[in-house]
Amino acid sequence: MSDQAFVTLATNDSYAKGALVLGQSLRNHNTTKKLVVLVGPHLAEPCRKALASIFDEVFEVNVMDSGDAAHLALMKRPDLGVTFTKLHCWTLTQYSKCVFMDADTMVLSNIDELFEREELSAAPDPGWPDCFNSGVFVFIPSNETYEQLVTFCMDNGSFDGGDQGVLNSFFNTWATADISKHLPFIYNLSSIAIYSYLPAFKEYGQNAKVVHFLGKVKPWNYAYDAQRGEVRGHSMPPEQCQLHPDYLLKWWQVFARSVMPVLQKAYGDDPFNSG
Amino acid sequence: MSDQAFVTLATNDSYAKGALVLGQSLRNHNTTKKLVVLVGPHLAEPCRKALASIFDEVFEVNVMDSGDAAHLALMKRPDLGVTFTKLHCWTLTQYSKCVFMDADTMVLSNIDELFEREELSAAPDPGWPDCFNSGVFVFIPSNETYEQLVTFCMDNGSFDGGDQGVLNSFFNTWATADISKHLPFIYNLSSIAIYSYLPAFKEYGQNAKVVHFLGKVKPWNYAYDAQRGEVRGHSMPPEQCQLHPDYLLKWWQVFARSVMPVLQKAYGDDPFNSG
Ligand SMILES: O=c1ccn([C@@H]2O[C@H](COP(=O)(O)OP(=O)(O)O)[C@@H](O)[C@H]2O)c(=O)[nH]1
Ligand SMILES: O=c1ccn([C@@H]2O[C@H](COP(=O)(O)OP(=O)(O)O)[C@@H](O)[C@H]2O)c(=O)[nH]1
Ligand SMILES: [Mn+2]
Ligand SMILES: [Mn+2]
Repeated sequence: MSDQAFVTLATNDSYAKGALVLGQSLRNHNTTKKLVVLVGPHLAEPCRKALASIFDEVFEVNVMDSGDAAHLALMKRPDLGVTFTKLHCWTLTQYSKCVFMDADTMVLSNIDELFEREELSAAPDPGWPDCFNSGVFVFIPSNETYEQLVTFCMDNGSFDGGDQGVLNSFFNTWATADISKHLPFIYNLSSIAIYSYLPAFKEYGQNAKVVHFLGKVKPWNYAYDAQRGEVRGHSMPPEQCQLHPDYLLKWWQVFARSVMPVLQKAYGDDPFNSG
Repeated sequence: MSDQAFVTLATNDSYAKGALVLGQSLRNHNTTKKLVVLVGPHLAEPCRKALASIFDEVFEVNVMDSGDAAHLALMKRPDLGVTFTKLHCWTLTQYSKCVFMDADTMVLSNIDELFEREELSAAPDPGWPDCFNSGVFVFIPSNETYEQLVTFCMDNGSFDGGDQGVLNSFFNTWATADISKHLPFIYNLSSIAIYSYLPAFKEYGQNAKVVHFLGKVKPWNYAYDAQRGEVRGHSMPPEQCQLHPDYLLKWWQVFARSVMPVLQKAYGDDPFNSG
Protein backbone atom coordinates (compact mmCIF):
# COMPACT_ATOMS: atom_id res chain seq x y z
CA MET A 1 0.00 0.00 0.00
CA SER A 2 1.42 3.33 -1.00
CA ASP A 3 0.07 5.16 2.05
CA GLN A 4 2.04 2.97 4.44
CA ALA A 5 5.74 3.35 5.06
CA PHE A 6 8.77 2.12 6.93
CA VAL A 7 10.48 5.13 8.48
CA THR A 8 14.01 5.50 9.82
CA LEU A 9 16.26 8.34 10.94
CA ALA A 10 19.86 9.36 10.29
CA THR A 11 21.27 12.62 11.63
CA ASN A 12 24.85 11.94 10.58
CA ASP A 13 26.91 9.98 8.06
CA SER A 14 27.54 7.03 10.39
CA TYR A 15 23.86 6.37 11.09
CA ALA A 16 23.21 6.95 7.37
CA LYS A 17 25.24 3.80 6.67
CA GLY A 18 22.93 1.95 9.02
CA ALA A 19 19.86 3.43 7.33
CA LEU A 20 21.18 2.35 3.92
CA VAL A 21 21.67 -1.25 5.06
CA LEU A 22 18.22 -1.26 6.70
CA GLY A 23 16.57 0.11 3.54
CA GLN A 24 18.41 -2.38 1.34
CA SER A 25 17.46 -5.27 3.63
CA LEU A 26 13.79 -4.26 3.36
CA ARG A 27 14.13 -4.14 -0.47
CA ASN A 28 15.90 -7.52 -0.50
CA HIS A 29 12.87 -9.02 1.21
CA ASN A 30 10.46 -7.43 -1.26
CA THR A 31 8.54 -5.05 0.93
CA THR A 32 5.48 -3.52 -0.75
CA LYS A 33 5.60 -0.48 1.54
CA LYS A 34 7.23 2.91 0.94
CA LEU A 35 10.64 3.57 2.47
CA VAL A 36 11.15 6.93 4.16
CA VAL A 37 14.24 8.32 5.85
CA LEU A 38 14.32 11.43 8.04
CA VAL A 39 17.66 13.20 7.90
CA GLY A 40 19.24 15.90 10.01
CA PRO A 41 20.40 19.22 8.54
CA HIS A 42 24.08 18.29 8.80
CA LEU A 43 23.97 15.23 6.61
CA ALA A 44 26.42 15.51 3.67
CA GLU A 45 24.92 15.95 0.23
CA PRO A 46 26.35 12.77 -1.36
CA CYS A 47 25.01 10.83 1.61
CA ARG A 48 21.50 12.15 0.89
CA LYS A 49 21.94 11.18 -2.74
CA ALA A 50 22.85 7.63 -1.72
CA LEU A 51 19.82 7.45 0.59
CA ALA A 52 17.58 8.72 -2.22
CA SER A 53 18.63 5.81 -4.42
CA ILE A 54 17.35 3.22 -1.90
CA PHE A 55 14.54 5.11 -0.11
CA ASP A 56 11.40 6.46 -1.77
CA GLU A 57 11.58 9.68 0.21
CA VAL A 58 14.29 11.60 2.08
CA PHE A 59 12.85 14.24 4.43
CA GLU A 60 15.01 16.82 6.13
CA VAL A 61 13.94 17.43 9.70
CA ASN A 62 15.46 20.59 11.04
CA VAL A 63 14.07 20.97 14.52
CA MET A 64 15.97 24.25 15.07
CA ASP A 65 14.26 25.84 12.11
CA SER A 66 10.85 24.31 12.61
CA GLY A 67 9.23 27.11 14.63
CA ASP A 68 6.94 24.55 16.28
CA ALA A 69 6.79 23.35 19.89
CA ALA A 70 9.79 21.09 19.37
CA HIS A 71 11.96 24.11 18.56
CA LEU A 72 10.93 25.76 21.80
CA ALA A 73 11.53 22.58 23.78
CA LEU A 74 14.92 22.06 22.24
CA MET A 75 16.14 25.48 23.30
CA LYS A 76 15.64 24.41 26.91
CA ARG A 77 16.85 20.82 26.52
CA PRO A 78 19.49 20.74 23.78
CA ASP A 79 20.45 17.21 24.93
CA LEU A 80 17.15 15.93 23.55
CA GLY A 81 18.02 16.88 19.97
CA VAL A 82 17.87 13.42 18.39
CA THR A 83 14.82 12.54 20.50
CA PHE A 84 12.81 15.44 19.09
CA THR A 85 13.99 14.60 15.61
CA LYS A 86 12.68 11.06 16.05
CA LEU A 87 9.31 12.28 17.36
CA HIS A 88 8.97 14.19 14.08
CA CYS A 89 8.02 10.89 12.41
CA TRP A 90 4.47 11.56 13.70
CA THR A 91 4.24 14.51 11.28
CA LEU A 92 4.39 12.23 8.20
CA THR A 93 0.64 12.56 7.80
CA GLN A 94 0.72 11.72 4.10
CA TYR A 95 0.91 8.10 5.40
CA SER A 96 -1.94 6.38 7.19
CA LYS A 97 0.29 4.00 9.14
CA CYS A 98 4.04 3.62 9.60
CA VAL A 99 6.62 1.35 11.17
CA PHE A 100 9.57 3.21 12.66
CA MET A 101 12.87 1.33 12.69
CA ASP A 102 16.16 2.49 14.19
CA ALA A 103 19.00 2.92 11.71
CA ASP A 104 20.91 0.21 13.62
CA THR A 105 18.33 -2.47 12.76
CA MET A 106 18.26 -4.88 9.82
CA VAL A 107 15.47 -7.17 8.61
CA LEU A 108 16.04 -10.88 7.95
CA SER A 109 12.70 -11.52 6.25
CA ASN A 110 9.64 -9.69 4.95
CA ILE A 111 7.86 -8.00 7.88
CA ASP A 112 5.01 -6.23 6.07
CA GLU A 113 2.58 -8.04 8.42
CA LEU A 114 3.52 -5.48 11.08
CA PHE A 115 1.13 -3.06 9.36
CA GLU A 116 -1.79 -5.12 10.66
CA ARG A 117 -0.96 -3.86 14.17
CA GLU A 118 -2.30 -0.74 15.87
CA GLU A 119 -0.51 2.25 17.44
CA LEU A 120 1.50 1.85 19.62
CA SER A 121 2.82 -1.67 19.03
CA ALA A 122 6.37 -2.53 19.99
CA ALA A 123 8.47 -5.38 21.40
CA PRO A 124 9.55 -5.61 25.03
CA ASP A 125 12.88 -4.16 26.07
CA PRO A 126 15.18 -6.88 27.40
CA GLY A 127 16.58 -4.56 30.09
CA TRP A 128 13.26 -3.67 31.78
CA PRO A 129 10.65 -5.84 30.07
CA ASP A 130 7.60 -3.76 31.10
CA CYS A 131 9.02 -1.07 28.85
CA PHE A 132 8.90 -1.43 25.11
CA ASN A 133 12.04 -0.91 23.10
CA SER A 134 11.66 2.10 20.82
CA GLY A 135 13.89 0.72 18.08
CA VAL A 136 10.91 -0.80 16.21
CA PHE A 137 7.33 0.47 16.63
CA VAL A 138 4.07 0.79 14.73
CA PHE A 139 2.48 4.26 14.80
CA ILE A 140 -0.19 6.42 13.15
CA PRO A 141 1.10 9.79 11.92
CA SER A 142 -0.94 12.63 13.40
CA ASN A 143 -0.09 16.27 14.03
CA GLU A 144 -2.21 16.16 17.15
CA THR A 145 -0.29 13.23 18.62
CA TYR A 146 2.94 14.96 17.65
CA GLU A 147 2.00 18.14 19.53
CA GLN A 148 0.93 16.09 22.56
CA LEU A 149 4.21 14.20 22.55
CA VAL A 150 6.30 17.35 22.37
CA THR A 151 4.27 19.03 25.12
CA PHE A 152 4.53 15.91 27.26
CA CYS A 153 8.27 15.89 26.72
CA MET A 154 8.58 19.55 27.71
CA ASP A 155 6.52 19.06 30.86
CA ASN A 156 7.97 15.77 32.03
CA GLY A 157 11.35 15.33 30.37
CA SER A 158 12.52 11.82 29.62
CA PHE A 159 13.41 9.37 32.39
CA ASP A 160 16.22 7.92 30.28
CA GLY A 161 17.16 11.10 28.45
CA GLY A 162 16.00 9.71 25.11
CA ASP A 163 12.94 8.85 23.03
CA GLN A 164 12.39 5.46 24.70
CA GLY A 165 11.74 7.10 28.06
CA VAL A 166 9.32 9.67 26.62
CA LEU A 167 7.42 7.16 24.51
CA ASN A 168 7.03 4.69 27.38
CA SER A 169 5.73 7.40 29.71
CA PHE A 170 3.34 8.67 27.03
CA PHE A 171 2.05 5.27 25.87
CA ASN A 172 1.97 4.12 29.48
CA THR A 173 -0.57 1.30 29.20
CA TRP A 174 1.56 -0.77 26.83
CA ALA A 175 2.57 -3.27 29.53
CA THR A 176 -0.94 -3.92 30.83
CA ALA A 177 -3.66 -3.10 28.29
CA ASP A 178 -3.55 -5.09 25.05
CA ILE A 179 -1.44 -8.12 24.18
CA SER A 180 -1.78 -7.47 20.43
CA LYS A 181 0.37 -4.37 20.92
CA HIS A 182 3.19 -6.58 22.15
CA LEU A 183 5.23 -7.40 19.07
CA PRO A 184 7.01 -10.72 19.40
CA PHE A 185 10.56 -10.20 20.57
CA ILE A 186 11.89 -11.65 17.27
CA TYR A 187 10.82 -8.35 15.63
CA ASN A 188 13.41 -6.50 17.70
CA LEU A 189 16.06 -8.96 18.72
CA SER A 190 18.94 -7.21 20.43
CA SER A 191 22.34 -8.74 20.93
CA ILE A 192 22.12 -8.11 24.67
CA ALA A 193 19.37 -10.71 24.95
CA ILE A 194 21.38 -13.34 23.12
CA TYR A 195 24.02 -13.47 25.80
CA SER A 196 21.85 -12.96 28.84
CA TYR A 197 19.70 -16.06 28.15
CA LEU A 198 21.53 -18.10 25.53
CA PRO A 199 19.29 -21.22 25.73
CA ALA A 200 16.26 -19.10 24.77
CA PHE A 201 18.15 -17.62 21.84
CA LYS A 202 19.04 -21.14 20.69
CA GLU A 203 15.40 -22.20 21.03
CA TYR A 204 13.72 -19.19 19.44
CA GLY A 205 16.49 -17.23 17.70
CA GLN A 206 16.24 -19.03 14.35
CA ASN A 207 12.89 -17.26 13.84
CA ALA A 208 14.44 -13.80 14.18
CA LYS A 209 12.96 -11.26 11.76
CA VAL A 210 14.68 -8.06 12.84
CA VAL A 211 18.05 -7.71 14.56
CA HIS A 212 18.84 -4.57 16.50
CA PHE A 213 22.49 -3.64 17.08
CA LEU A 214 21.59 -1.78 20.25
CA GLY A 215 24.33 -0.26 22.38
CA LYS A 216 27.52 1.72 22.01
CA VAL A 217 29.24 -0.34 19.36
CA LYS A 218 27.55 -0.40 15.95
CA PRO A 219 28.32 -2.58 12.90
CA TRP A 220 29.87 0.41 11.11
CA ASN A 221 32.47 0.68 13.91
CA TYR A 222 34.02 -2.52 12.59
CA ALA A 223 35.99 -2.99 9.39
CA TYR A 224 35.32 -5.55 6.69
CA ASP A 225 37.74 -7.47 4.55
CA ALA A 226 35.71 -7.89 1.37
CA GLN A 227 38.25 -10.25 -0.23
CA ARG A 228 38.03 -12.73 2.62
CA GLY A 229 34.47 -11.92 3.58
CA GLU A 230 35.51 -11.36 7.19
CA VAL A 231 34.59 -8.75 9.77
CA ARG A 232 37.57 -7.26 11.58
CA GLY A 233 37.65 -6.21 15.23
CA HIS A 234 37.33 -2.74 16.64
CA SER A 235 38.84 -1.16 19.73
CA MET A 236 36.36 -2.07 22.48
CA PRO A 237 37.02 -4.75 25.08
CA PRO A 238 34.84 -7.81 24.37
CA GLU A 239 32.73 -7.55 27.55
CA GLN A 240 31.48 -4.14 26.40
CA CYS A 241 30.67 -5.32 22.92
CA GLN A 242 28.50 -8.31 22.26
CA LEU A 243 27.28 -8.10 18.70
CA HIS A 244 26.47 -11.55 17.37
CA PRO A 245 29.10 -12.49 14.75
CA ASP A 246 26.59 -14.05 12.30
CA TYR A 247 24.36 -10.97 12.27
CA LEU A 248 27.36 -8.68 12.07
CA LEU A 249 28.60 -10.59 9.03
CA LYS A 250 25.14 -10.37 7.42
CA TRP A 251 25.11 -6.60 7.95
CA TRP A 252 28.51 -6.24 6.30
CA GLN A 253 27.52 -8.49 3.40
CA VAL A 254 24.59 -6.22 2.60
CA PHE A 255 26.81 -3.20 3.04
CA ALA A 256 29.59 -4.51 0.79
CA ARG A 257 27.33 -5.93 -1.91
CA SER A 258 24.69 -3.22 -2.28
CA VAL A 259 25.42 -0.13 -0.21
CA MET A 260 29.10 0.43 -0.90
CA PRO A 261 28.59 0.76 -4.69
CA VAL A 262 25.80 3.28 -4.09
CA LEU A 263 27.97 5.33 -1.75
CA GLN A 264 30.94 5.22 -4.13
CA LYS A 265 28.77 6.46 -6.96
CA ALA A 266 27.33 9.24 -4.81
CA TYR A 267 30.67 10.38 -3.45
CA GLY A 268 32.52 10.16 -6.76
CA ASP A 269 36.01 11.48 -6.10
CA ASP A 270 35.18 12.96 -2.69
CA PRO A 271 36.86 11.33 0.29
CA PHE A 272 34.66 8.66 1.82
CA ASN A 273 35.36 6.57 4.85
CA SER A 274 34.25 3.00 4.26
CA GLY A 275 33.95 2.10 7.93
CA MET B 1 -8.62 -17.91 52.11
CA SER B 2 -7.43 -21.15 53.56
CA ASP B 3 -7.54 -23.03 50.26
CA GLN B 4 -5.02 -20.69 48.67
CA ALA B 5 -1.31 -20.84 49.37
CA PHE B 6 2.09 -19.40 48.64
CA VAL B 7 4.42 -22.28 47.80
CA THR B 8 8.20 -22.42 47.76
CA LEU B 9 10.87 -25.11 47.50
CA ALA B 10 14.08 -25.91 49.36
CA THR B 11 16.07 -29.06 48.63
CA ASN B 12 19.02 -28.16 50.83
CA ASP B 13 19.98 -26.11 53.88
CA SER B 14 21.17 -23.09 51.87
CA TYR B 15 17.91 -22.66 49.96
CA ALA B 16 16.07 -23.32 53.23
CA LYS B 17 17.55 -20.07 54.55
CA GLY B 18 16.07 -18.33 51.53
CA ALA B 19 12.71 -20.01 52.07
CA LEU B 20 12.70 -18.91 55.73
CA VAL B 21 13.33 -15.27 54.77
CA LEU B 22 10.66 -15.45 52.06
CA GLY B 23 8.11 -16.96 54.47
CA GLN B 24 8.94 -14.39 57.13
CA SER B 25 8.64 -11.53 54.63
CA LEU B 26 5.17 -12.77 53.65
CA ARG B 27 4.18 -12.91 57.34
CA ASN B 28 5.62 -9.42 57.96
CA HIS B 29 3.29 -8.11 55.29
CA ASN B 30 0.26 -9.85 56.79
CA THR B 31 -0.63 -12.33 54.11
CA THR B 32 -3.97 -14.05 54.64
CA LYS B 33 -2.88 -17.06 52.58
CA LYS B 34 -1.36 -20.35 53.73
CA LEU B 35 2.41 -20.78 53.48
CA VAL B 36 3.68 -24.09 52.10
CA VAL B 37 7.25 -25.26 51.59
CA LEU B 38 8.25 -28.33 49.58
CA VAL B 39 11.45 -29.89 50.89
CA GLY B 40 13.81 -32.47 49.46
CA PRO B 41 14.61 -35.74 51.29
CA HIS B 42 18.10 -34.57 52.28
CA LEU B 43 17.05 -31.55 54.28
CA ALA B 44 18.34 -31.72 57.88
CA GLU B 45 15.80 -32.30 60.62
CA PRO B 46 16.40 -29.03 62.56
CA CYS B 47 16.04 -27.17 59.30
CA ARG B 48 12.59 -28.70 58.78
CA LYS B 49 11.69 -27.74 62.33
CA ALA B 50 12.66 -24.13 61.63
CA LEU B 51 10.60 -24.11 58.43
CA ALA B 52 7.63 -25.56 60.31
CA SER B 53 7.68 -22.61 62.70
CA ILE B 54 7.19 -20.09 59.88
CA PHE B 55 5.26 -22.12 57.26
CA ASP B 56 1.85 -23.69 57.74
CA GLU B 57 2.91 -26.87 55.97
CA VAL B 58 6.19 -28.59 55.17
CA PHE B 59 5.82 -31.29 52.50
CA GLU B 60 8.58 -33.69 51.66
CA VAL B 61 8.84 -34.33 47.95
CA ASN B 62 10.94 -37.37 47.24
CA VAL B 63 10.85 -37.78 43.50
CA MET B 64 13.02 -40.91 43.66
CA ASP B 65 10.47 -42.64 45.89
CA SER B 66 7.38 -41.29 44.22
CA GLY B 67 6.73 -44.16 41.81
CA ASP B 68 4.98 -41.76 39.45
CA ALA B 69 5.98 -40.53 36.00
CA ALA B 70 8.49 -38.09 37.49
CA HIS B 71 10.43 -40.97 39.01
CA LEU B 72 10.67 -42.66 35.62
CA ALA B 73 11.73 -39.44 33.94
CA LEU B 74 14.35 -38.72 36.54
CA MET B 75 16.05 -42.07 35.99
CA LYS B 76 16.76 -40.96 32.42
CA ARG B 77 17.55 -37.31 33.17
CA PRO B 78 19.10 -37.11 36.65
CA ASP B 79 20.19 -33.52 35.87
CA LEU B 80 16.53 -32.45 36.03
CA GLY B 81 16.16 -33.40 39.70
CA VAL B 82 15.26 -29.98 41.10
CA THR B 83 13.06 -29.27 38.06
CA PHE B 84 10.88 -32.30 38.71
CA THR B 85 10.75 -31.44 42.38
CA LYS B 86 9.43 -27.96 41.49
CA LEU B 87 6.79 -29.38 39.12
CA HIS B 88 5.46 -31.35 42.10
CA CYS B 89 3.81 -28.15 43.31
CA TRP B 90 0.95 -29.01 40.89
CA THR B 91 0.09 -32.00 43.11
CA LEU B 92 -0.94 -29.74 46.02
CA THR B 93 -4.59 -30.30 45.12
CA GLN B 94 -5.82 -29.49 48.62
CA TYR B 95 -5.43 -25.88 47.44
CA SER B 96 -7.59 -24.31 44.75
CA LYS B 97 -4.99 -21.77 43.67
CA CYS B 98 -1.34 -21.15 44.51
CA VAL B 99 1.48 -18.72 43.89
CA PHE B 100 4.87 -20.36 43.53
CA MET B 101 7.86 -18.30 44.62
CA ASP B 102 11.54 -19.23 44.35
CA ALA B 103 13.37 -19.50 47.67
CA ASP B 104 15.64 -16.66 46.49
CA THR B 105 12.77 -14.15 46.39
CA MET B 106 11.54 -11.79 49.11
CA VAL B 107 8.38 -9.69 49.25
CA LEU B 108 8.45 -5.97 50.02
CA SER B 109 4.69 -5.54 50.48
CA ASN B 110 1.49 -7.57 50.65
CA ILE B 111 0.93 -9.33 47.32
CA ASP B 112 -2.25 -11.30 48.06
CA GLU B 113 -3.83 -9.61 45.02
CA LEU B 114 -1.88 -12.09 42.85
CA PHE B 115 -4.56 -14.67 43.67
CA GLU B 116 -6.97 -12.77 41.43
CA ARG B 117 -4.91 -13.94 38.43
CA GLU B 118 -5.39 -17.11 36.42
CA GLU B 119 -3.01 -19.97 35.59
CA LEU B 120 -0.39 -19.41 34.24
CA SER B 121 0.42 -15.84 35.20
CA ALA B 122 4.03 -14.74 35.50
CA ALA B 123 6.29 -11.76 34.87
CA PRO B 124 8.54 -11.43 31.81
CA ASP B 125 12.12 -12.66 31.99
CA PRO B 126 14.55 -9.80 31.52
CA GLY B 127 16.92 -11.97 29.49
CA TRP B 128 14.45 -13.06 26.77
CA PRO B 129 11.29 -11.07 27.46
CA ASP B 130 8.92 -13.32 25.47
CA CYS B 131 9.63 -15.95 28.11
CA PHE B 132 8.22 -15.63 31.57
CA ASN B 133 10.50 -15.97 34.54
CA SER B 134 9.56 -19.03 36.58
CA GLY B 135 10.63 -17.55 39.90
CA VAL B 136 7.10 -16.25 40.61
CA PHE B 137 3.96 -17.72 39.03
CA VAL B 138 0.27 -18.27 39.68
CA PHE B 139 -0.98 -21.83 39.13
CA ILE B 140 -3.91 -24.16 39.77
CA PRO B 141 -2.92 -27.45 41.40
CA SER B 142 -4.15 -30.41 39.33
CA ASN B 143 -2.92 -33.97 39.06
CA GLU B 144 -3.85 -33.95 35.40
CA THR B 145 -1.71 -30.89 34.65
CA TYR B 146 1.07 -32.45 36.70
CA GLU B 147 1.03 -35.64 34.62
CA GLN B 148 0.94 -33.63 31.41
CA LEU B 149 3.91 -31.54 32.53
CA VAL B 150 5.99 -34.56 33.43
CA THR B 151 5.14 -36.34 30.18
CA PHE B 152 5.91 -33.18 28.22
CA CYS B 153 9.23 -32.93 30.01
CA MET B 154 10.08 -36.56 29.23
CA ASP B 155 9.20 -36.15 25.56
CA ASN B 156 10.78 -32.76 24.93
CA GLY B 157 13.36 -32.14 27.64
CA SER B 158 13.98 -28.57 28.72
CA PHE B 159 15.61 -26.06 26.40
CA ASP B 160 17.43 -24.47 29.32
CA GLY B 161 17.89 -27.60 31.39
CA GLY B 162 15.56 -26.31 34.12
CA ASP B 163 11.94 -25.67 35.02
CA GLN B 164 11.78 -22.30 33.23
CA GLY B 165 12.42 -23.94 29.86
CA VAL B 166 9.82 -26.67 30.40
CA LEU B 167 7.16 -24.30 31.73
CA ASN B 168 7.63 -21.83 28.86
CA SER B 169 7.37 -24.59 26.25
CA PHE B 170 4.29 -26.04 27.96
CA PHE B 171 2.47 -22.74 28.59
CA ASN B 172 3.55 -21.54 25.15
CA THR B 173 0.92 -18.89 24.51
CA TRP B 174 1.95 -16.72 27.44
CA ALA B 175 3.68 -14.14 25.23
CA THR B 176 0.80 -13.69 22.80
CA ALA B 177 -2.58 -14.70 24.26
CA ASP B 178 -3.71 -12.75 27.33
CA ILE B 179 -2.22 -9.61 28.84
CA SER B 180 -3.78 -10.31 32.25
CA LYS B 181 -1.40 -13.28 32.55
CA HIS B 182 1.53 -10.88 32.35
CA LEU B 183 2.33 -9.98 35.93
CA PRO B 184 3.91 -6.54 36.18
CA PHE B 185 7.67 -6.83 36.31
CA ILE B 186 7.70 -5.33 39.84
CA TYR B 187 6.34 -8.71 41.06
CA ASN B 188 9.60 -10.38 40.02
CA LEU B 189 12.27 -7.74 39.93
CA SER B 190 15.66 -9.29 39.33
CA SER B 191 18.93 -7.53 40.03
CA ILE B 192 20.04 -8.14 36.44
CA ALA B 193 17.39 -5.72 35.20
CA ILE B 194 18.48 -3.00 37.59
CA TYR B 195 21.87 -2.68 35.99
CA SER B 196 20.91 -3.28 32.37
CA TYR B 197 18.46 -0.32 32.26
CA LEU B 198 19.16 1.79 35.33
CA PRO B 199 16.93 4.78 34.34
CA ALA B 200 13.89 2.46 34.21
CA PHE B 201 14.75 1.07 37.65
CA LYS B 202 14.98 4.61 38.99
CA GLU B 203 11.61 5.46 37.40
CA TYR B 204 9.68 2.32 38.36
CA GLY B 205 11.81 0.52 40.98
CA GLN B 206 10.32 2.26 44.02
CA ASN B 207 7.12 0.29 43.35
CA ALA B 208 8.89 -3.07 43.60
CA LYS B 209 6.85 -5.72 45.39
CA VAL B 210 9.03 -8.81 45.00
CA VAL B 211 12.79 -8.92 44.54
CA HIS B 212 14.39 -11.99 43.02
CA PHE B 213 18.07 -12.69 43.75
CA LEU B 214 18.42 -14.55 40.47
CA GLY B 215 21.84 -15.87 39.43
CA LYS B 216 24.81 -17.66 40.89
CA VAL B 217 25.39 -15.52 43.97
CA LYS B 218 22.63 -15.59 46.57
CA PRO B 219 22.16 -13.43 49.68
CA TRP B 220 23.19 -16.32 51.93
CA ASN B 221 26.61 -16.42 50.20
CA TYR B 222 27.42 -13.15 51.96
CA ALA B 223 28.15 -12.61 55.62
CA TYR B 224 26.43 -10.11 57.92
CA ASP B 225 27.86 -8.08 60.73
CA ALA B 226 24.86 -7.81 63.03
CA GLN B 227 26.56 -5.34 65.37
CA ARG B 228 27.17 -2.82 62.61
CA GLY B 229 24.18 -3.84 60.48
CA GLU B 230 26.43 -4.29 57.44
CA VAL B 231 26.60 -6.92 54.72
CA ARG B 232 30.12 -8.20 54.09
CA GLY B 233 31.51 -9.23 50.71
CA HIS B 234 31.88 -12.70 49.30
CA SER B 235 34.44 -14.14 46.94
CA MET B 236 33.04 -13.35 43.48
CA PRO B 237 34.39 -10.60 41.23
CA PRO B 238 31.92 -7.67 41.15
CA GLU B 239 31.05 -8.02 37.43
CA GLN B 240 29.67 -11.50 38.10
CA CYS B 241 27.67 -10.41 41.09
CA GLN B 242 25.21 -7.58 40.92
CA LEU B 243 22.84 -7.90 43.83
CA HIS B 244 21.41 -4.54 44.76
CA PRO B 245 22.92 -3.46 48.12
CA ASP B 246 19.64 -2.09 49.53
CA TYR B 247 17.72 -5.32 48.83
CA LEU B 248 20.62 -7.41 50.08
CA LEU B 249 20.62 -5.47 53.36
CA LYS B 250 16.83 -5.92 53.67
CA TRP B 251 17.21 -9.67 53.21
CA TRP B 252 19.86 -9.85 55.93
CA GLN B 253 17.82 -7.69 58.29
CA VAL B 254 14.92 -10.15 58.05
CA PHE B 255 17.34 -13.05 58.45
CA ALA B 256 19.10 -11.58 61.49
CA ARG B 257 15.98 -10.34 63.24
CA SER B 258 13.53 -13.21 62.69
CA VAL B 259 15.12 -16.22 61.04
CA MET B 260 18.38 -16.57 62.96
CA PRO B 261 16.62 -16.97 66.34
CA VAL B 262 14.36 -19.65 64.85
CA LEU B 263 17.34 -21.53 63.42
CA GLN B 264 19.31 -21.26 66.67
CA LYS B 265 16.39 -22.65 68.60
CA ALA B 266 15.94 -25.51 66.12
CA TYR B 267 19.62 -26.41 66.00
CA GLY B 268 20.22 -26.11 69.74
CA ASP B 269 23.80 -27.19 70.35
CA ASP B 270 24.29 -28.68 66.86
CA PRO B 271 26.80 -26.94 64.65
CA PHE B 272 25.11 -24.40 62.43
CA ASN B 273 26.67 -22.20 59.78
CA SER B 274 25.18 -18.72 59.92
CA GLY B 275 26.05 -17.78 56.36
O1 LIG C 1 23.52 10.53 16.58
C1 LIG C 1 22.49 9.88 16.33
C2 LIG C 1 21.93 9.01 17.28
C3 LIG C 1 20.80 8.30 16.94
N1 LIG C 1 20.20 8.45 15.72
C4 LIG C 1 18.97 7.73 15.38
O2 LIG C 1 18.32 7.37 16.58
C5 LIG C 1 18.27 5.93 16.70
C6 LIG C 1 18.42 5.52 18.16
O3 LIG C 1 19.76 5.61 18.58
P1 LIG C 1 20.64 4.28 18.81
O4 LIG C 1 20.21 3.23 17.85
O5 LIG C 1 22.10 4.67 18.77
O6 LIG C 1 20.26 3.88 20.29
P2 LIG C 1 20.26 2.36 20.90
O7 LIG C 1 19.30 1.56 20.07
O8 LIG C 1 21.67 1.86 20.84
O9 LIG C 1 19.75 2.56 22.30
C7 LIG C 1 19.37 5.45 15.77
O10 LIG C 1 19.21 4.09 15.36
C8 LIG C 1 19.24 6.43 14.63
O11 LIG C 1 18.12 6.12 13.80
C9 LIG C 1 20.77 9.32 14.78
O12 LIG C 1 20.27 9.43 13.67
N2 LIG C 1 21.90 10.02 15.12
O1 LIG D 1 19.73 -26.79 44.71
C1 LIG D 1 18.64 -26.18 44.58
C2 LIG D 1 18.39 -25.34 43.49
C3 LIG D 1 17.17 -24.70 43.41
N1 LIG D 1 16.20 -24.91 44.37
C4 LIG D 1 14.89 -24.25 44.26
O2 LIG D 1 14.67 -23.92 42.89
C5 LIG D 1 14.57 -22.49 42.76
C6 LIG D 1 15.20 -22.05 41.43
O3 LIG D 1 16.61 -22.06 41.50
P1 LIG D 1 17.43 -20.67 41.57
O4 LIG D 1 16.62 -19.67 42.31
O5 LIG D 1 18.80 -20.97 42.12
O6 LIG D 1 17.54 -20.27 40.04
P2 LIG D 1 17.66 -18.77 39.45
O7 LIG D 1 16.43 -18.03 39.90
O8 LIG D 1 18.93 -18.16 39.98
O9 LIG D 1 17.69 -18.98 37.96
C7 LIG D 1 15.25 -21.95 44.00
O10 LIG D 1 14.88 -20.62 44.30
C8 LIG D 1 14.80 -22.94 45.04
O11 LIG D 1 13.46 -22.74 45.43
C9 LIG D 1 16.46 -25.74 45.45
O12 LIG D 1 15.61 -25.91 46.30
N2 LIG D 1 17.67 -26.37 45.51
MN1 LIG E 1 19.09 1.38 18.08
MN1 LIG F 1 15.53 -17.87 41.70
